[in-house]
Amino acid sequence: MNKLKEIKETLLMGPGPSCVPPQVYKALATATIGHLDPAFIGIMDDIKAMLQQIFQTENDVTIPMSGTGSAGMETCFVNLVESGDKLLVLINGVFGMRMQDVANRLGADVDTLEFEWGTAVDVDAVKMKLDGATYDIVAVVHAETSTGVCNPVDLIGSLVKDTDALFLVDTVTSLGGIPVKVDEWGIDAVYSGTQKCLSCPPGLSPLSFSKRAMNKLANRKTKVPNWYLDLSMIVNYWQGAKRTYHHTAPINMLYALYAALECMLEEGMESVFARHQAAHEQLKAGLAELGIPFLVKEDSRLPMLNAVKIPEGVDEADIRMTLLKERQIEIGAGLGPLAGKIWRIGLMGHTARAENVERLLTALRAQLGF
Amino acid sequence: MNKLKEIKETLLMGPGPSCVPPQVYKALATATIGHLDPAFIGIMDDIKAMLQQIFQTENDVTIPMSGTGSAGMETCFVNLVESGDKLLVLINGVFGMRMQDVANRLGADVDTLEFEWGTAVDVDAVKMKLDGATYDIVAVVHAETSTGVCNPVDLIGSLVKDTDALFLVDTVTSLGGIPVKVDEWGIDAVYSGTQKCLSCPPGLSPLSFSKRAMNKLANRKTKVPNWYLDLSMIVNYWQGAKRTYHHTAPINMLYALYAALECMLEEGMESVFARHQAAHEQLKAGLAELGIPFLVKEDSRLPMLNAVKIPEGVDEADIRMTLLKERQIEIGAGLGPLAGKIWRIGLMGHTARAENVERLLTALRAQLGF
Repeated sequence: MNKLKEIKETLLMGPGPSCVPPQVYKALATATIGHLDPAFIGIMDDIKAMLQQIFQTENDVTIPMSGTGSAGMETCFVNLVESGDKLLVLINGVFGMRMQDVANRLGADVDTLEFEWGTAVDVDAVKMKLDGATYDIVAVVHAETSTGVCNPVDLIGSLVKDTDALFLVDTVTSLGGIPVKVDEWGIDAVYSGTQKCLSCPPGLSPLSFSKRAMNKLANRKTKVPNWYLDLSMIVNYWQGAKRTYHHTAPINMLYALYAALECMLEEGMESVFARHQAAHEQLKAGLAELGIPFLVKEDSRLPMLNAVKIPEGVDEADIRMTLLKERQIEIGAGLGPLAGKIWRIGLMGHTARAENVERLLTALRAQLGF
Repeated sequence: MNKLKEIKETLLMGPGPSCVPPQVYKALATATIGHLDPAFIGIMDDIKAMLQQIFQTENDVTIPMSGTGSAGMETCFVNLVESGDKLLVLINGVFGMRMQDVANRLGADVDTLEFEWGTAVDVDAVKMKLDGATYDIVAVVHAETSTGVCNPVDLIGSLVKDTDALFLVDTVTSLGGIPVKVDEWGIDAVYSGTQKCLSCPPGLSPLSFSKRAMNKLANRKTKVPNWYLDLSMIVNYWQGAKRTYHHTAPINMLYALYAALECMLEEGMESVFARHQAAHEQLKAGLAELGIPFLVKEDSRLPMLNAVKIPEGVDEADIRMTLLKERQIEIGAGLGPLAGKIWRIGLMGHTARAENVERLLTALRAQLGF
């Protein structure tokens, strides 16, 4: 009955999870120790320091939350939003819509700017919107996993800087694949996931809060309506001399994150970004030969999440299932209005290597009859 | 700099995490696959079925939440409580207090019955309280991890059954160590943690909701104010034909839970419970020789969480640190008003074995100069 024995190693080229390097699997299986053991506290401190490097921030509060990427989104909103706060959410895909949903549930007064799925957020439209109203928070997704679009977070950030709003950014798919410059771009609250370009299994959400964000949290009129994700308590476990217990940290997942971050920093961030870009270029050239076009214009494309249009007359679900079952390659389907219209080919983290791209192209050529 | 290499295998005898069996470490390091891969869906189905056995329930909604035990608590309250709902929380330790805090943050009208820490909830007092008022939810902790007390959930359940209230129970420390009979005891919402008697690393929270609880959720006037933990969406991923993506499941942690549950069911639940009881009896006999008394009266003691009074003149923190550093044995400190007054000795899951108890007793004899 043990189904774990039947699991086949799979080339993960969907929208996440991505392939996991051997060091990270090994770390996962390291002996569990206590969450207040000084040896574990030392590991937590190193994780914080490595996350600061990868987020390019000096923010003190730079820690992994004990949940997946969506828990990171929830953490940012639930800590920073009070009922009636005015938010602007920029939407051009599933994850922008999710932000709107999360914020609405917290009683925020949510304004949105929507853009066609597959196109980037238009900075001029944001400028006009910001000129006409005052917001407590402006929120945007950096790398829209549902469409493969890279939004111009740097430019949006420079607009938000001129207002009193906090700037909240989703970097679930971007972090570790393209630069994320939290301090330089004026980001106040940012979250990511472990299962994309960080090449760690899903389960944690790295997050960083600026001093301004922590200040807003400290000056709330009401308690955070979410005990589990209340950062004002969680920071007392992650920093300071006393390390007050909040909840039992996910020890082994944190070992894995430790190893994954160490792998990346040893390779060097510039090399990691170049590797993602090279894999993307290789895929692009191969897909061109197959006559498979991208959904997104070249200047807004993400290297790690390639949304491509399904060729005429192709049964897209059948191809995906055949790739998975016969060749152990996973690629992703479209979400929402793009379901059935696109594939999402992930080149994230450990997956982003020439041999993997070639393996997928070979398989696609065979499946599509080239 | 790699601190993972410095981690020493530790005998975990604190309030959790507990020791993890080799099969579970192996499962953790199984190749990550996609969260929509049919092979993974099969594993999810088996986890559900095994959790139903361990919770002794036929509840359809019996799944692990993607967070630690406290996320399970949050899930129960956030899905079932609407602003103004009337709650009765029975409190005799840290986790009952936490329930009160969680519920208050959600705008509930929280009534409490408090009992001295180290004593059990008094059923007659609960009866009187229920006779005098109407509640939407009655909540209690089965195994109070902060004091080592077992509350009479069966008896409280039979009282709550005669009212319209839902019965919400924390079984974080009890599940897998003593019987938890969800259906028989009339429990409507129950959660646990993986890192106690289930012998799996921390990171997931098994949970079960009755039809009545799901009905209350379906008839809410407002959306669940927590997107990440909204069970009405999460069940669409865990069951049904379509398996709609909600958030990326923590794949490898779920592998570990799968293996941990399989280990328990192979051993047989009755044998598992007997092993916990035997380890407790052995510890009790050994502590009596050392003149170390229990905090809790015999009829309310948990076998898996032994709260014992610190002998006169002993530097309790020094003993704990010495056990950890020199003998790689972790025991727990007291929490809140019991800090400095008790040790908490965990005999949970894989830890609950004769050789482990003897190793601790030998160490304590040496440390205390016997």
